[in-house]
Amino acid sequence: MIDKFMEEAIKQAQKSAQEGGIPIGAVLVLDEQIIGRGHNQRIQKGSPTLHAEIDCLENAGRLSPEEYKRSKLYTTLSPCHMCSGAVLLYKIPEVIIGENISFLGAEELLKKNGVKLYVFNDERCVKIMKDYIEDNPKLWKEDIGEK
Amino acid sequence: MIDKFMEEAIKQAQKSAQEGGIPIGAVLVLDEQIIGRGHNQRIQKGSPTLHAEIDCLENAGRLSPEEYKRSKLYTTLSPCHMCSGAVLLYKIPEVIIGENISFLGAEELLKKNGVKLYVFNDERCVKIMKDYIEDNPKLWKEDIGEK
Repeated sequence: MIDKFMEEAIKQAQKSAQEGGIPIGAVLVLDEQIIGRGHNQRIQKGSPTLHAEIDCLENAGRLSPEEYKRSKLYTTLSPCHMCSGAVLLYKIPEVIIGENISFLGAEELLKKNGVKLYVFNDERCVKIMKDYIEDNPKLWKEDIGEK
Repeated sequence: MIDKFMEEAIKQAQKSAQEGGIPIGAVLVLDEQIIGRGHNQRIQKGSPTLHAEIDCLENAGRLSPEEYKRSKLYTTLSPCHMCSGAVLLYKIPEVIIGENISFLGAEELLKKNGVKLYVFNDERCVKIMKDYIEDNPKLWKEDIGEK
């Protein structure tokens, strides 16, 4: 077990895969407790904005600035510009990333703004994305706004 | 009338105000047609992620990368890091901003990434925010992740 919270994020990615969705998951942790779980909802809800991290923050509900500042965001895949922007908006100080091989998000922007990043490059995170992208190249490109 | 699409964004801000919500509105325009409207949903839906721009993109639904690249986002207030990140994710080439006096978002980041910005600093956009912030300083700070 690489990290108990990353395991929960991976479970979210697997749940999304089982639902026929894009297999990316996230959890928000406050004071060592999970307060939000989420996964990509593009297919399931027809949503262009509910990436795993946004879905997770949405499910965590309204928090105070102080709570965000004590929280950590776990995500199975390197966060895109939108999700990284949400981290910067709420000043979440730490992001733990399952892998950044399939997709490299706005990690440089996060680092430049003082956010601590940890990248596991966990094999299961890489494999679930690799398989999905091979089978669904068009849906994946839609999710990251690429032609 | 400053711009017919900005007028629609202002109507969304006014609608949110009437609902007791944070008065920020947005519209997404594709090929000179409005394809999405939205407003801040923090109060109405208890949502920490449905800023006006995100709500608008969500309501526009799933679009192709080509459609985003032909679209313009109108928002009554300078877009925060999350909403600017959504613009970068989908490579929306142009953002038209009602005002950036009450709040200055990630405009520099957008410009650096080649997004064209137009700022009206429309009096109505300034006033609706000024009034809201004066009456609801804590809710406003929550919306932008500040203490």
